[in-house]
Amino acid sequence: MTDIRSKLTGVFAPAVTPFFNERLVLKDLRYNLKKLNQTELTGYLSLGSNGEYKSLTDKEQLKVLEIFAEEKENKIVMVGCGCESTHQTIEKCNLAGKFGFDFVSVLTPSYFAKQMDGDILKGYFQKVADTSPLPVLIYNAPGFAGGVQIPPKTIERLSHHPNIVGIKDSSPSGPAGLLSLLDPNEEFHVMAGSINFFYPALHLGAVGGIVSLANALPQACHELYHLFKNNRFDKANTLHRRLSKLNAAISGTYGVAGVKAAMDITGYRGGEPRHPLRPLNKEDINMIRDKILTEHFSIA
Amino acid sequence: MTDIRSKLTGVFAPAVTPFFNERLVLKDLRYNLKKLNQTELTGYLSLGSNGEYKSLTDKEQLKVLEIFAEEKENKIVMVGCGCESTHQTIEKCNLAGKFGFDFVSVLTPSYFAKQMDGDILKGYFQKVADTSPLPVLIYNAPGFAGGVQIPPKTIERLSHHPNIVGIKDSSPSGPAGLLSLLDPNEEFHVMAGSINFFYPALHLGAVGGIVSLANALPQACHELYHLFKNNRFDKANTLHRRLSKLNAAISGTYGVAGVKAAMDITGYRGGEPRHPLRPLNKEDINMIRDKILTEHFSIA
Amino acid sequence: MTDIRSKLTGVFAPAVTPFFNERLVLKDLRYNLKKLNQTELTGYLSLGSNGEYKSLTDKEQLKVLEIFAEEKENKIVMVGCGCESTHQTIEKCNLAGKFGFDFVSVLTPSYFAKQMDGDILKGYFQKVADTSPLPVLIYNAPGFAGGVQIPPKTIERLSHHPNIVGIKDSSPSGPAGLLSLLDPNEEFHVMAGSINFFYPALHLGAVGGIVSLANALPQACHELYHLFKNNRFDKANTLHRRLSKLNAAISGTYGVAGVKAAMDITGYRGGEPRHPLRPLNKEDINMIRDKILTEHFSIA
Amino acid sequence: MTDIRSKLTGVFAPAVTPFFNERLVLKDLRYNLKKLNQTELTGYLSLGSNGEYKSLTDKEQLKVLEIFAEEKENKIVMVGCGCESTHQTIEKCNLAGKFGFDFVSVLTPSYFAKQMDGDILKGYFQKVADTSPLPVLIYNAPGFAGGVQIPPKTIERLSHHPNIVGIKDSSPSGPAGLLSLLDPNEEFHVMAGSINFFYPALHLGAVGGIVSLANALPQACHELYHLFKNNRFDKANTLHRRLSKLNAAISGTYGVAGVKAAMDITGYRGGEPRHPLRPLNKEDINMIRDKILTEHFSIA
Repeated sequence: MTDIRSKLTGVFAPAVTPFFNERLVLKDLRYNLKKLNQTELTGYLSLGSNGEYKSLTDKEQLKVLEIFAEEKENKIVMVGCGCESTHQTIEKCNLAGKFGFDFVSVLTPSYFAKQMDGDILKGYFQKVADTSPLPVLIYNAPGFAGGVQIPPKTIERLSHHPNIVGIKDSSPSGPAGLLSLLDPNEEFHVMAGSINFFYPALHLGAVGGIVSLANALPQACHELYHLFKNNRFDKANTLHRRLSKLNAAISGTYGVAGVKAAMDITGYRGGEPRHPLRPLNKEDINMIRDKILTEHFSIA
Repeated sequence: MTDIRSKLTGVFAPAVTPFFNERLVLKDLRYNLKKLNQTELTGYLSLGSNGEYKSLTDKEQLKVLEIFAEEKENKIVMVGCGCESTHQTIEKCNLAGKFGFDFVSVLTPSYFAKQMDGDILKGYFQKVADTSPLPVLIYNAPGFAGGVQIPPKTIERLSHHPNIVGIKDSSPSGPAGLLSLLDPNEEFHVMAGSINFFYPALHLGAVGGIVSLANALPQACHELYHLFKNNRFDKANTLHRRLSKLNAAISGTYGVAGVKAAMDITGYRGGEPRHPLRPLNKEDINMIRDKILTEHFSIA
Repeated sequence: MTDIRSKLTGVFAPAVTPFFNERLVLKDLRYNLKKLNQTELTGYLSLGSNGEYKSLTDKEQLKVLEIFAEEKENKIVMVGCGCESTHQTIEKCNLAGKFGFDFVSVLTPSYFAKQMDGDILKGYFQKVADTSPLPVLIYNAPGFAGGVQIPPKTIERLSHHPNIVGIKDSSPSGPAGLLSLLDPNEEFHVMAGSINFFYPALHLGAVGGIVSLANALPQACHELYHLFKNNRFDKANTLHRRLSKLNAAISGTYGVAGVKAAMDITGYRGGEPRHPLRPLNKEDINMIRDKILTEHFSIA
Repeated sequence: MTDIRSKLTGVFAPAVTPFFNERLVLKDLRYNLKKLNQTELTGYLSLGSNGEYKSLTDKEQLKVLEIFAEEKENKIVMVGCGCESTHQTIEKCNLAGKFGFDFVSVLTPSYFAKQMDGDILKGYFQKVADTSPLPVLIYNAPGFAGGVQIPPKTIERLSHHPNIVGIKDSSPSGPAGLLSLLDPNEEFHVMAGSINFFYPALHLGAVGGIVSLANALPQACHELYHLFKNNRFDKANTLHRRLSKLNAAISGTYGVAGVKAAMDITGYRGGEPRHPLRPLNKEDINMIRDKILTEHFSIA
């Protein structure tokens, strides 16, 4: 588990999937990873929400994973594997395992949202974790899961499963409530799913964050983590404010299309989102560029 | 269009997909279709919500469609094709077209629910309808789509698209509001997505219904339609009450697992739902059996 | 009870409270009632949602009731009495009783929305009904009550209380579900709380409606009821569509401020809503005037 | 403003209103205040959510304020004044001003929730603040206000009003987002509305908290603030966890009825909540007593 703690620490980028005219642009994904490899990010989430994984066919998902396998170097890789049925999710976990990645991130099913109570969700995560060749991170993201929330008591119970090593919390209120409920000695690691509550969550025991802004501003996101670890709280709080304001203007306003636009501005290759999502217009792109400059971050 | 109106009328069963131990049981699907073919149902929705289509792999979806192609006889078949990206949805529509089915039913994307405003949804349905080889039915079901609702004005605009022939409305309030907004002379057909509001919707101009209860009690559901068409409103209202009460105890309480249990009781083969959904326990099955008997419907 | 049934039938206007510069304009309320008395409306709801009762001080509520007492003539009067505590609600019911009005309409408490489960709500309505000198209509309006919904089973149980004579349902889905659950022989009367589902609800057994549009177009609303009672369903459906479209443009878009503007257009005196609500601007008023003309209703 | 900053700091108890058999028990309120006066709490919120102010008649509210005036000693007193209309709210603010209290706390109107957009809310708070004799704290509590949220941009604009001195944020996600958006040099003070996010909010610039648990465990809540101010973050985090767990079991589970039960256990006089809320049964009270002991807090 020491190994797991050392891997699940710091900042991860939930890598985007670049498109052009509705088609995957794998060379741009490769470009991004090569460039992000130069930063101090701990690693990547492949096929996460910002990777638009639900908008990809199975074949396309495979191609994306191949790029990660080829380019990951010494970075840690988590793979988003959550599907609607346990059967499908296990299939994806097995695939991630064959590639030799590090973790799977498993979102709650939500099509039958009304049925997804604590009991059903407990059964789901247990069955997935019993079988998954890779350690499991629960992914709690009601905004992407039809409002489905994993009840805190269910999370507490799941935290004792030997193959469930943590949770990425992207619920609107962040992981603060969860962190106060969990026993701090437990071998269960909490990752913040948004830069908005990444810094306060660190004060409460979170070990890191998986934050969309790390696609465009990886070093600034890492720096926030670094300041916290060195008890430089005043500087950290100032950086937290700058990054949160920026995040509100990017992901908070435009979702993944905004993240991609910000990447194009800071020297990465975000590309287009896949339809029905749409790329930002020039005015919105300029607005993001201005915000990045206002908050004193550099652009490409 | 006369042809379309004659096809989009009366009652459709959104066929379930039987499982046993997490595996598809295609022979039970075949059995159900052969038996439902004997009834006065107009047709089927294949790969709909009650078909647990989001819980099936692509290969499994293909197998299900093959059974429908083999067994459909003279019934009308709609195919659920809604995915998260326009790209995937069109791929499914093309597949349904190759089989020579009659309509596609297209659910709203919802993973990026916050982004799914009227404009994005309009673009989505237009692009799908521009390309689909089969006429498109919009499927409005916020309960299965993270709360995403298609704004009435968007529906109104989409109703003029030559390849969009109607809507299946399963929103909590049913199609009443929609029916009062749409021009009654329009070649756009409204189907009720629940037995709860099927009968009142008929009074407002709906042409039929796609109702889960038709899997277990096809003739009773058809009879309600028949009574309405013959202006026997008192009898119709009484039957409407009986079916609605029953539906509240089956689908309203247990979702697709309840529909499957009811089918087992009335002589069809519902089988198990796929995990994380669970089959009903004996007590719940008996409760459903009692309700069916209380409302004077026959069991197998 | 025969008496109650005869009183709870047809169309009621939930009378608005006219303001000017934040002050009550009682003479305009008087004017409206005198004019509405000439119509075939069954009666009024005083101090309802459209009466902005929660925006009035206790003294102002008293003044409003005095006007109703003086002007009601042979019309039936219900009084909105729902407060946050049982204690306050009973105080208001007693006040309504002293005036000799006909019914009280009691909205669910909702400040502590999270606590308002079926059990608490049952206790609330029972205690109010045990004490109220006037027969009680339950008022189910989650849109005005922080999303609080009375569970159908709770309504079913309350329907047997001798002093609870019915329900006004303004939930988004209307009373259709409720009407299919209740025993049709029960001495419990269902009123539709919106013109949108008034007509279909009549087909399912509703006895009447309390609809905001009746403030501006009382005869047209009554006519819809009249057509239904005379089995002229085609004409009724057409009128239902016209009124529903209009309602979407008035109350559905602007709430009570829209209802007041519509009244000013059709010859009543709506006046201003109370701040923080705002009167409509000229452009919006003209839009409503156009809609009224488009749907062929007459204006003053 | 220096004065205001010194007053708006540390921990406030949102005092409960004790009832017995539906009647106010003013001597128990007096008892609580006398005893809380001995603690290091900064002050009280009178007539807040935990004071069940919406369940009190105007006369009863007056009596409660009289007790506060008589017993407050050197404590700071805020008064909950939010009503549905600007007119009523100003009336309450004037009343609070006559008593010479320190601040008013103004909840968003919510009856017409659908209309309560940023523009309407801005107008509301501006008009109230223009007139109020006491400085205004905005009270953002969607859980008690039908889901109405004040948009962050509206809060930002209101923060510049000379008579709006801060905000109490009780939204589910707490004030973290807000704190990152506001300019830290602004004379606008953020108070956490729940012990759950009080400690992390302090790290982000919040100046204090108004937390229900301070009614039962005032010194422990103050201690958390004290530890933070002295940079004893490890101890603070541990105490934060203990208090948050306890709060989940008390207010989080039972609302104000739980807070009152906890007060009875720790030596205060919570008394009964007012109907339709109900006092806890013995089993639930014992559960709370056990939790208090488990987390090593003392009971009376």
